[in-house]
Amino acid sequence: MALARGYAATDASKPLEPFTFERREPNDDDIVIDIKFSGICHSDIHQARNEWGNSSFPMVPGHEIAGIVTAVGAKVTKFKVGDRAGVGCFVNSCTHCATRDLDLEHYMPGLIATYNGFEADGVTPTYGGYSDHVVVKEGYALSIPESLPLDAAAPLLCAGITLYSPLMHWKAGPGKKVAIVGMGGLGHMGVKIGSALGAEITVLSQSLSKQEDGLKLGASHYYATKDPETFTKLAGTFDLIISTVGADMDLAPYLNLLKLDGTMVLVGVPEVPASIHAFSLIGGRRSLAGSMIGSIKETQEMLDFCGKHNIVSEIELIRMDQVNEAYERVIKSDVRYRFVIDMATL
Amino acid sequence: MALARGYAATDASKPLEPFTFERREPNDDDIVIDIKFSGICHSDIHQARNEWGNSSFPMVPGHEIAGIVTAVGAKVTKFKVGDRAGVGCFVNSCTHCATRDLDLEHYMPGLIATYNGFEADGVTPTYGGYSDHVVVKEGYALSIPESLPLDAAAPLLCAGITLYSPLMHWKAGPGKKVAIVGMGGLGHMGVKIGSALGAEITVLSQSLSKQEDGLKLGASHYYATKDPETFTKLAGTFDLIISTVGADMDLAPYLNLLKLDGTMVLVGVPEVPASIHAFSLIGGRRSLAGSMIGSIKETQEMLDFCGKHNIVSEIELIRMDQVNEAYERVIKSDVRYRFVIDMATL
Repeated sequence: MALARGYAATDASKPLEPFTFERREPNDDDIVIDIKFSGICHSDIHQARNEWGNSSFPMVPGHEIAGIVTAVGAKVTKFKVGDRAGVGCFVNSCTHCATRDLDLEHYMPGLIATYNGFEADGVTPTYGGYSDHVVVKEGYALSIPESLPLDAAAPLLCAGITLYSPLMHWKAGPGKKVAIVGMGGLGHMGVKIGSALGAEITVLSQSLSKQEDGLKLGASHYYATKDPETFTKLAGTFDLIISTVGADMDLAPYLNLLKLDGTMVLVGVPEVPASIHAFSLIGGRRSLAGSMIGSIKETQEMLDFCGKHNIVSEIELIRMDQVNEAYERVIKSDVRYRFVIDMATL
Repeated sequence: MALARGYAATDASKPLEPFTFERREPNDDDIVIDIKFSGICHSDIHQARNEWGNSSFPMVPGHEIAGIVTAVGAKVTKFKVGDRAGVGCFVNSCTHCATRDLDLEHYMPGLIATYNGFEADGVTPTYGGYSDHVVVKEGYALSIPESLPLDAAAPLLCAGITLYSPLMHWKAGPGKKVAIVGMGGLGHMGVKIGSALGAEITVLSQSLSKQEDGLKLGASHYYATKDPETFTKLAGTFDLIISTVGADMDLAPYLNLLKLDGTMVLVGVPEVPASIHAFSLIGGRRSLAGSMIGSIKETQEMLDFCGKHNIVSEIELIRMDQVNEAYERVIKSDVRYRFVIDMATL
């Protein structure tokens, strides 16, 4: 066992604080990553505060991990010491069913979350990226392209793949009109990746306060959702709408912006259920769908795509001891566009 | 103009009663159909009682029309006098946009409903199938296969196509597990058509009271939704669920019955919006979609398919003067499985 240092929530009502814990000895198929940067995802906050009701404490959050390999097990073939490596939202999965071969392991019940989960033994908790190092099976580590800065690449491991996967699955590309709802940590990645895929991107944001950024990052159009005219003007426009919004919203006006056979995909999770009238779907054979991160294979594909297109997150680099303040700012959407913790400050 | 006799609702609160009105003179591209049978669709009741808020009175309902051609215009090529012909939910559509070429005209705003609509002139009301004859453009009339009895074929024009279209679009067939929710006028057509397509059909009905019928009509399995065990036992089972239910329902337990990447399609329209939590969709990349009848081309394809497989509706033939009583029984789901009016009794 090796001692690890990090920051943890000790219960749902307390701020994060310094925490020391043990990482397992690396097995033959493990690598050890010296964590250089760790992104802050809104779901870190939901879980640290037990807002989804499934939290175990103490909890070391963080599933947007970027660092450097410092050790490799005897059977490791993908990584060597000194390589750039990342870890995303899960560190293990069920390997017994056919789904693994479909590269859809992230949807299976056997998934082991990077933190707030339990190792395959069912009792050892997993701890995340707000820490100095992590031990992970090489099959669940990602290779981060040399062309990308490590700090701004960290959020690709969750925010990036969360947008890339539905954009690919629902075939965003040339000739397709895609709306990204919400211009935050997830949304701005959708703008960058979607436009790099060749789709015509429209941002639908509450106000126009981030319009300049949106257009700079690749959007062709930018509309305020607080302006009712947006919904009349854009009726029947989009092949695909991806909603990154975690706040409660009425879906009907958005579904009405879809073309015939269009799909609205939820990647943000509002706390309360949305209401939806069947007519919103029936009158145009529309679909409302959900999508969750991506497989390891697809995450690597996304990283390689981002490496080729020089896509990273727009980040605000903070010290470890600023994490609790950063949480408050995430909740107020007061970040452009993702906080990343410089783990050298731990 | 030719005088037509029928039954009409004169306002939302009155029973249907005998009504005389004018049908237009047939144009060169019209045919005249002597209506032999007219099915009763639940939407007839919704509209006759203005439950969707868009009704015009007097209203002659009926969009499951089967009859015999008695006259054809000079330019008509598809029909001749004496042919069996049907009319479904619409009698005209926008011909100007690309969608017509995609055979998706039924989703376009220019659609002219068989009743409770207005002709292309915008002022002449359309009147439906609870009448002695109808004048319709040949391009919106369907050919009813000789192998099918006319009375039981009438409901194919709405109930049949309403199920056939989503079963085809979402690729029901060999190797696919399909659930049909609701064992009524729509649902029993889904059982027949879905099993003829080679899919493994499961009926999810409130109780087991129609189980024997369901299995006889082609279902492999039949479960009661009032039994909570149904929802644990069948979790993650279906590629496709088609809900024909018009009553309010909680969608979450049904979405949980879908496999990864599965789709639940609404063809019934509950009066109030359903509530849906994003997690129900995200945890399995599931979709909730809607589907509405089918194009003329697809409706003909469905009729030909039914002709080949000897598929018709299970019907209860009634006299015209029983229509109001039949409406009450439809509301109570007290019909196995579709009322068809024998128009000879008008």
